[in-house]
Amino acid sequence: MGVTLKDIAKHTGFSVSTVSMVLNNRPHRIPEATRRKILAIAQDLHYKPNRMAVGLITRRTMRIGIVVDDISNTFYAELAKGAEVEAERNGYSTLLANTYTVIRRKASDCVERLDDSGIDGLLLAISAHDEERDVSALVERLHRQGRPVIFVGKPYAGLAAPDVEVENELGGCLATRHLIERGHTRIGVIPGPMGRPHNRLHGYIRALREAGMRFDPSLVEEGDFRLESGLLGAARLVDKHVTAIFACNDLMAYGVIQFAIERGIAIPGDLAVVGYDDLAFSRLMPIPLTTIRQPALELGRTACAKIMAMIAAKTVHTDDVLFSPELIVRKSS
Amino acid sequence: MGVTLKDIAKHTGFSVSTVSMVLNNRPHRIPEATRRKILAIAQDLHYKPNRMAVGLITRRTMRIGIVVDDISNTFYAELAKGAEVEAERNGYSTLLANTYTVIRRKASDCVERLDDSGIDGLLLAISAHDEERDVSALVERLHRQGRPVIFVGKPYAGLAAPDVEVENELGGCLATRHLIERGHTRIGVIPGPMGRPHNRLHGYIRALREAGMRFDPSLVEEGDFRLESGLLGAARLVDKHVTAIFACNDLMAYGVIQFAIERGIAIPGDLAVVGYDDLAFSRLMPIPLTTIRQPALELGRTACAKIMAMIAAKTVHTDDVLFSPELIVRKSS
Repeated sequence: MGVTLKDIAKHTGFSVSTVSMVLNNRPHRIPEATRRKILAIAQDLHYKPNRMAVGLITRRTMRIGIVVDDISNTFYAELAKGAEVEAERNGYSTLLANTYTVIRRKASDCVERLDDSGIDGLLLAISAHDEERDVSALVERLHRQGRPVIFVGKPYAGLAAPDVEVENELGGCLATRHLIERGHTRIGVIPGPMGRPHNRLHGYIRALREAGMRFDPSLVEEGDFRLESGLLGAARLVDKHVTAIFACNDLMAYGVIQFAIERGIAIPGDLAVVGYDDLAFSRLMPIPLTTIRQPALELGRTACAKIMAMIAAKTVHTDDVLFSPELIVRKSS
Repeated sequence: MGVTLKDIAKHTGFSVSTVSMVLNNRPHRIPEATRRKILAIAQDLHYKPNRMAVGLITRRTMRIGIVVDDISNTFYAELAKGAEVEAERNGYSTLLANTYTVIRRKASDCVERLDDSGIDGLLLAISAHDEERDVSALVERLHRQGRPVIFVGKPYAGLAAPDVEVENELGGCLATRHLIERGHTRIGVIPGPMGRPHNRLHGYIRALREAGMRFDPSLVEEGDFRLESGLLGAARLVDKHVTAIFACNDLMAYGVIQFAIERGIAIPGDLAVVGYDDLAFSRLMPIPLTTIRQPALELGRTACAKIMAMIAAKTVHTDDVLFSPELIVRKSS
């Protein structure tokens, strides 16, 4: 803990109440010379108003909680960085928790921990893992306490909090349309875990229908957004003679590419691959990856700016924000 | 802010002082049935002791600050994740700040921000950027206030705080020895920014000397730990006819590989490349990267465990911890 008013009183020779009046900017008749001396010493000693004491009065913690799936996935790292930059500009700090560490943690448990530490609002960038009721209850509780929540991509439909995300159905549609335009007629898809809103998969289906092509459910191989599931999905889809794969995130697309390299399958000649995210590494892949760009830094920054505005306005409501996805064509397709 | 003792008093019909005695576990003669009822309602209402009020008494915030260079570099992301997991197991939360965002921030400014929010201890995983005096003053100030600091890799020698890191000189030596064993006699090196402790570069020099080879300073091309500087360094070193390059982190090694691919230089035939870090992507590179593994998750976990032990013991002193580097041989060398 830092320097107290008492310390400053001792160093300046003035009383604690004089020091307090000056530093708390209360109306006073203290001579200007005294005021200057107190301020100078306070600065020398690195005095900071006791935030905990201030917090008891203002009921603000000046902290925003951020829960992400896994910070070592650079999509979430960029997102957290965008939020942190924006928070810092407004005098807020960010408390971070990961739901996927060595074992999977429940998002609601992560929030409890951050909440123990005190937060004014919460950003949730998490995927679905059979805990819809817990997450929903959590949002309700924070809302009852007047604390806003923003999702960066909702893991379940129907959650009663605003959302900042990319138009994922359009993104899935752009990815699939691109493969259709390149002449592919047998296109496999590796979505994330089933049971959550599958907007990217819906986009894939929409693009097929727009092109007058039949949707074949046997060409859908469930993944879990991790690299290994892309590798497994690719193995199954290649057995079904697809000529192209749309992986619903870049990590799974890397798995597809790794599988192709191991098996000596030429990309894009024998197999075209499109990912989703545009992670920094996607342009460095063995064959640079065609993908859908999500502006992760901007998503984090926007979500954080909105939540600080909600805290200031003492509301838990705001409009959703939808960012447009962008197709980035590289050599994998 | 959450539920108060007053709320629980209202819901149970007991007085605030009765509720307080039960929930704060003070000695009391309250009937067991009353106690149970109060505890049940407190649980239903998600009562949490007011951490800010508790903090004013215990002078603990239960928060640890972590400052990293850039969370979107997966080395730092893994490190922050390891620290967060360890903190969470002990009831602590972690406050995160990045020194490198859109612009470069001073590490000391980042710490000020975290400090405003209240922290019991600080982990610094930062690189050197002409702010040795500020960082040193910062450590001194936190120490005077009884708050421990641990570096995960010291950016400047002589900082008066413990260090948790990998034996970097040995790591540089292992990387270079490996290239010498593969028959290379003209080996370029791309270290990080000059002016900081160059243990990896020292390891490179040591390995050359051990092998009876002359150290040629013209084969050192300063980098800045970012990909682009690896690309530029590679361009200069290839002009000097090196047959191998040791890049002092994986990101710069990716830059070397990108340069080689663009110029049609065969790896490892025409140019062998060794990196440092073993980021998750290094095994996925066009040519999987030979590198020195740093156990980032373990570094973060260990540093966090140590700082919590120091906070508990009310000391700012502890032993340094040195992890052993490990050579991972892949196809780039």
